[in-house]
Amino acid sequence: MTLSEKIKPFLRDVPDFPKPGVLFKDITPLLASPEMRSEVVKAMADQVRPFSPEAIAAVEARGFIFGMLLAQELGISFVPVRKAGKLPYRKIHEQYALEYGTAEIEMHEDALARGTRVIIHDDLLATGGTAAAAGKMVQRLGGIVAGYSFLINLSFLDGEKRLKEQFSVQPQFLISF
Amino acid sequence: MTLSEKIKPFLRDVPDFPKPGVLFKDITPLLASPEMRSEVVKAMADQVRPFSPEAIAAVEARGFIFGMLLAQELGISFVPVRKAGKLPYRKIHEQYALEYGTAEIEMHEDALARGTRVIIHDDLLATGGTAAAAGKMVQRLGGIVAGYSFLINLSFLDGEKRLKEQFSVQPQFLISF
Repeated sequence: MTLSEKIKPFLRDVPDFPKPGVLFKDITPLLASPEMRSEVVKAMADQVRPFSPEAIAAVEARGFIFGMLLAQELGISFVPVRKAGKLPYRKIHEQYALEYGTAEIEMHEDALARGTRVIIHDDLLATGGTAAAAGKMVQRLGGIVAGYSFLINLSFLDGEKRLKEQFSVQPQFLISF
Repeated sequence: MTLSEKIKPFLRDVPDFPKPGVLFKDITPLLASPEMRSEVVKAMADQVRPFSPEAIAAVEARGFIFGMLLAQELGISFVPVRKAGKLPYRKIHEQYALEYGTAEIEMHEDALARGTRVIIHDDLLATGGTAAAAGKMVQRLGGIVAGYSFLINLSFLDGEKRLKEQFSVQPQFLISF
């Protein structure tokens, strides 16, 4: 059985969340299983190790969960990417498009030393808007976008293509729908 | 040197955040250090192991960070406690008081099997309002509040006393101000 097949029973489909017509992939059954979490984080680490990462930049809030395990597994820095207004120190921000309007994420301006090789992590790759905004901030801080790591890829939303084109990296994920 | 003394240089004081007169304890320098993270999570695990925990319930968003490492270190379930509107499945909620108005946190109604011994984790204990709301939800789901784990205790806000009285447990933390 592939890891993707092993993960699938630990994702729960929730119809019509966050709005009608959307089938949400709920990761809470996976979070409840220490064994599956271990397998997942080991596989994520194996995927990104070839890119010689020195920091994991993880997107609030669900990205923090496997993002920190991944940073710990690799023994490297963890950098939080947060929603507007949450980080306390001097920071930079990037806007990204939502279906209606825009949202903003932020990073501390001293989060990365120049030249740091960064893997950007989130649990889910959809259109790639948030992930691209995080990538732009990493670059503005003088970091290198060494790669992207996701648990889930929603392939019909083409985020993979977008990140590939914009950052010249092959986004990694463990399961694709 | 005590662990508390070792942690202190990895916390950054940010004055007047989130509002004038508040001295914010910024944990991002600690998150950047894999060695200190390891020491912290091992110490947290040692503190709560005597309470025989079977699940870590961690409060969004900063609570997810060490909460997941702690669950992994102990090899037990991780249960996210989230802000209103974030969890996709059937859920329960609890309000808690803010300085002005109220806020609400939620848990999935199937997050805990009856009788599960739960440690509630967040990075910081202030007045204990959020932590107490999480504790109430654990009890409503049939779980047992086996203890509380925090990185930082703001002792002048008396959250420790509140949780002790309300849940008959001794909250654990690694550093106190």
